[in-house]
Amino acid sequence: MSYEGLRVMGIDPGLTRCGLSVAQAGRGRAVVPVAVGVVRTPAGAELAERLLRLSDAVNEWMDDYRPDVVAIERVFERGNVSTVMNTAHAVGVLMLAAAQRGIPVHMYTPSEVKKAISGNGRADKKQMTVMITRILGLSEPPKPADAADALALAVCHCWRAPLLARTAEALSPQSTHPEGVRP
Amino acid sequence: MSYEGLRVMGIDPGLTRCGLSVAQAGRGRAVVPVAVGVVRTPAGAELAERLLRLSDAVNEWMDDYRPDVVAIERVFERGNVSTVMNTAHAVGVLMLAAAQRGIPVHMYTPSEVKKAISGNGRADKKQMTVMITRILGLSEPPKPADAADALALAVCHCWRAPLLARTAEALSPQSTHPEGVRP
Repeated sequence: MSYEGLRVMGIDPGLTRCGLSVAQAGRGRAVVPVAVGVVRTPAGAELAERLLRLSDAVNEWMDDYRPDVVAIERVFERGNVSTVMNTAHAVGVLMLAAAQRGIPVHMYTPSEVKKAISGNGRADKKQMTVMITRILGLSEPPKPADAADALALAVCHCWRAPLLARTAEALSPQSTHPEGVRP
Repeated sequence: MSYEGLRVMGIDPGLTRCGLSVAQAGRGRAVVPVAVGVVRTPAGAELAERLLRLSDAVNEWMDDYRPDVVAIERVFERGNVSTVMNTAHAVGVLMLAAAQRGIPVHMYTPSEVKKAISGNGRADKKQMTVMITRILGLSEPPKPADAADALALAVCHCWRAPLLARTAEALSPQSTHPEGVRP
């Protein structure tokens, strides 16, 4: 079974800034960047209005890039309470957009992503940017800078997908189409 | 300006259980119950799938009852972390459903609701059920029992709407159509 061509949307969730990326698995561990960007919603707007804007934006990305699978960062209770809550609300609408299209969603913790990309679960932002730039064969660091995390999530899933599928297959011998794989 | 006929959807958000209600403002402080229920999603299902089911259910309620405004409980970081996060994800999709229809959303803390309904911000579940049963003129406590909070939110907004409108008007003298009021 080949994962070549698997198209992953990586999402670094947030309401003020939400990083979006699309990357496609190539041969072996090669990953080809397709798109990267940041969606912003105005801090002064009503919460419901901000969620609507974010939802519209991610739906537009899904229309444009038709990902096979979504990889999204798992939210933790760290830092400012209202920021955490806003991010959790954002995750709700982002996951809903995927579910409405039947696109499977995988969640990764920040340390899982860091470990997959750099070998170190505590890698800092600079190390991560260097690794992502190298892995994707970019001539310079990805822009906007705060979207690098979204690319890292997509790369992480491209690399984890074969392992996840083997695990799923081992757990359920009947399964022939692990989620996130084009039949 | 009269609030008679204002139709409020009260939502006690949750992913495992989400309380939904619709109530309509009558004369003075009278409030007429229209509908009450609980949406459940299976704890064993994928998070994205659960959010989709909740979204479909609340959209169906909005189609059926066409509320003018939504009153939803504000989530706090209390209790089990993953329950709080799931509730926050649920709030995201619930607010999105309202925003997609242009329905204004108001958030209330549990103690604001308790104080409005019973005069006591620390009223217990039993006291709240007794008050809601009395206010809505029901012959017995609302069923399902865990939907009483959703009704309390709707009643709370029916009573707060005139005050909110006066405050909005005082802050912006040009405003003639405070949100949540049928023109």
